[in-house]
Amino acid sequence: MQTLTVNLGDRSYPIHVGAGLLERAGELLQQAGVRGKVAVVTNPTVAQLYLDPIHEALTNAEFEVTPILVPDGEEHKNLKSLVSIYDRLIGERFERKSCVLALGGGVVGDVAGFAAATYLRGVSYVQVPTTLLAQVDSSVGGKTGINHESGKNLIGAFYQPKLVLIDVAVLRTLPHRELVAGLAEVIKYGIIQDPALFELLEQRMEKLLGSDRELLSQVIAVSCAIKARVVEADEREDDYRAVLNFGHTIGHALETVTGYRQVLHGEAVAVGMVKAVALSVQQGFCDTASFNRVAALVRKAGLPVEIPPGVLPQNLIQAMEVDKKVAGGKIKFIMCEGIGKTRFHWLAPNEVLSALGV
Amino acid sequence: MQTLTVNLGDRSYPIHVGAGLLERAGELLQQAGVRGKVAVVTNPTVAQLYLDPIHEALTNAEFEVTPILVPDGEEHKNLKSLVSIYDRLIGERFERKSCVLALGGGVVGDVAGFAAATYLRGVSYVQVPTTLLAQVDSSVGGKTGINHESGKNLIGAFYQPKLVLIDVAVLRTLPHRELVAGLAEVIKYGIIQDPALFELLEQRMEKLLGSDRELLSQVIAVSCAIKARVVEADEREDDYRAVLNFGHTIGHALETVTGYRQVLHGEAVAVGMVKAVALSVQQGFCDTASFNRVAALVRKAGLPVEIPPGVLPQNLIQAMEVDKKVAGGKIKFIMCEGIGKTRFHWLAPNEVLSALGV
Repeated sequence: MQTLTVNLGDRSYPIHVGAGLLERAGELLQQAGVRGKVAVVTNPTVAQLYLDPIHEALTNAEFEVTPILVPDGEEHKNLKSLVSIYDRLIGERFERKSCVLALGGGVVGDVAGFAAATYLRGVSYVQVPTTLLAQVDSSVGGKTGINHESGKNLIGAFYQPKLVLIDVAVLRTLPHRELVAGLAEVIKYGIIQDPALFELLEQRMEKLLGSDRELLSQVIAVSCAIKARVVEADEREDDYRAVLNFGHTIGHALETVTGYRQVLHGEAVAVGMVKAVALSVQQGFCDTASFNRVAALVRKAGLPVEIPPGVLPQNLIQAMEVDKKVAGGKIKFIMCEGIGKTRFHWLAPNEVLSALGV
Repeated sequence: MQTLTVNLGDRSYPIHVGAGLLERAGELLQQAGVRGKVAVVTNPTVAQLYLDPIHEALTNAEFEVTPILVPDGEEHKNLKSLVSIYDRLIGERFERKSCVLALGGGVVGDVAGFAAATYLRGVSYVQVPTTLLAQVDSSVGGKTGINHESGKNLIGAFYQPKLVLIDVAVLRTLPHRELVAGLAEVIKYGIIQDPALFELLEQRMEKLLGSDRELLSQVIAVSCAIKARVVEADEREDDYRAVLNFGHTIGHALETVTGYRQVLHGEAVAVGMVKAVALSVQQGFCDTASFNRVAALVRKAGLPVEIPPGVLPQNLIQAMEVDKKVAGGKIKFIMCEGIGKTRFHWLAPNEVLSALGV
C-alpha cells in the first residue's frame, strides 16, 4: 500500500493506493478517526460486487453500517438522488460525527460527497472510488455536486474527504470501456504537467489496457500526486486549478448536448483534449508534432478523437456559454503549448467554432 | 458607520453598522471587490419597502441587478425556494464571479446564503439583514441552510459572506413583535459572555424597545463582536461555538413542534433560555438569583418565559433527538453558571423532561 497526502492545512487527508484495501476499510477508517455510523452510498451494480466485503470489514471494526443505494448513471446525479440520501440520513438519525462513505464511480462520489458536505452543514466523508476515472480524478480535489437540466455540476460544493481508499483490485470487474475512459484523465495529466508520464503511456499503453495491476497502481499514484499539487496551490479554483479542466470545456458541452448518455465522461474529455490541442495549434500556441502525439496516444488507448456525427458544433458552443468557464462573453480555454505545458486563453465563441468542425 | 472585522483567515470579512447604509450599498460592494451581476434575494414584504433604494444604489454603481423574490416565512425556508433561486441564477447566466445579496431576515439570508454557497460550488455572498435578529445573529458565522420536514437547518453549509451591511434605519419599519424577538439573541450574548451587556439591557430595556437608534447601533455592534470572537475560535462548530446555541436546543424543538408558525425564533429562544437556566439550577450549576434576573429581563423585553399551553414536553424531547445536538443518545446542553458564564453538559432525555414541566 502506498500513501500520499493532499496537503490542505486542517483539511489535509491521506490517499491510500493498493490491492485489497476494501477488506481493510474498517481499520483504515478507524485510523482516520472515523467513529460510529457509516452510510455506504453506492449503486446497484457496485453493491452486487463490493457491498458485502466492505460491509463486513466495517462491521468487524464496530461501525454501524447503513447501505444507501442510488440509481446508476450520470442522469441520476440530480436533486432526486440527493434528497433520497438526505431522507435516509435523517431517518437513520445520522449525527454530526457520523460518516458518509462513497463506494462507486464519479456519480456516486459527487452526489454522496455533496450530501456529506451539506447534511447538518457537513459530516465526515470517505471516498472508495471503484472506477479508474474516479480514482485518478474525483478522489483528489473535493469537488462535489449534482447536475441541473441546464448543465453539469451547476450545484455543488468544495468539500474534502477525511480519507480516500483506492483499491486497484476492483478494476478487474470494471467494464473495458470504462477502464479506457479513465485513461483519458491519465493522458490529461501527462499533457498538462508530465512529459515522462506521457512517454510512459506511449510506451506501455498495451500493458495498461491489459489491466496490469502494478502499472495501474503506479499510474494512479502519479496521477493523484499531480492533481494534489495543483489543488494544493488553488483549492477553490480561483485561477490555476482550472488547468485540470484541460479538455473539459468541450468535453462537458459534449456530455450536455448528448444528454449524458451517448458518451462517457472520459470519452468526451478525450475528444475535448484533441480539439483543445487543435485549437492551440490554430491559435499559434502549439506545434503540429505535439498535436500528432496527443491524437495518436488517444487513439492508441481506444478513445475517440472526433465529435460524434449528428452533434452540431453550434450546440456545443451554446452549452459552453451556460457552463461555468465563461466570463464577459468569452470562453476560458486551457491551451496546450506542447506536452507538459499549458496556458489560459480567452476565446470568442466563433474562434472556438472554427476548430470544432469535423 | 462603525466597522468590525470577522477574522477567519482568507475568509475574513467586514461588518458595517450604521444608519443609511442601504443607500451606500453600491460603493460598499465595490470596495469589497464585488463586480458585475448581483442577485438581490428578498421577500415581497421587504421588497416593497427596500428593494427600490438598494436597486438604485447598486445600479448607480454599475452593477447589473436581478431581483429574486422568495415567499416570506420560516415554512418557505425549504428546497422549493432554494431551487427557485438556482433556476433564476442559471436563467440569468450568473457566473462564478457574480454575487448573491440577501436583503431580508434570517429566512432570506439562510436560503440565499446556501444558494450562494452551492451555485457553481460557491459565488460571492453579501448580507443586508433587515431584522434585528438577523443583524445580531445570522450576519456573523456563515451558517446557511434550509429546513427539512423533520427538523430545522438539517441541510446547509458553512459559508462566509464577503461583506455584511447592517442598516439600523430599516428597523423603524420592523414590526414591534419582531424587534422584541431579536432582543432575545441580544440577551443571550449577555448571559453567555457579557455581564456588562446584560446589565445595560436591564437598565435600558425601555429605551431599546422604543427603537433608540444610537442604543440599537451600540447593542448590535457589541453583539456582533461577541459572536465574531466565538466564531473565530471555532468556525465549524466542532466544539466551543456550540455555546451560541444557548437556549436553542429547547427553542428549536419548540419551533419544530409548533410547525414554525405559532412562535417566532426569538420567542422560542427566550423560552429555551429560561428553561436552560432552570435546568442549570436543577443540575446544581447555577444560583437562583441568576435565574430570577434572566427570567425578569426576558419578561421585561416582553418575551415569553413558558412553553405555550398545548405543547407536550415529550414531543419537544422527541424533536431534540432528531436535531443536531445529539450524540450517543444524550442531548448536549449549554448550562448557565451565572450571568456571563456557561459550560457544556450532556443530559439524558428524562433529565431534561423534568425541567420542562409547566
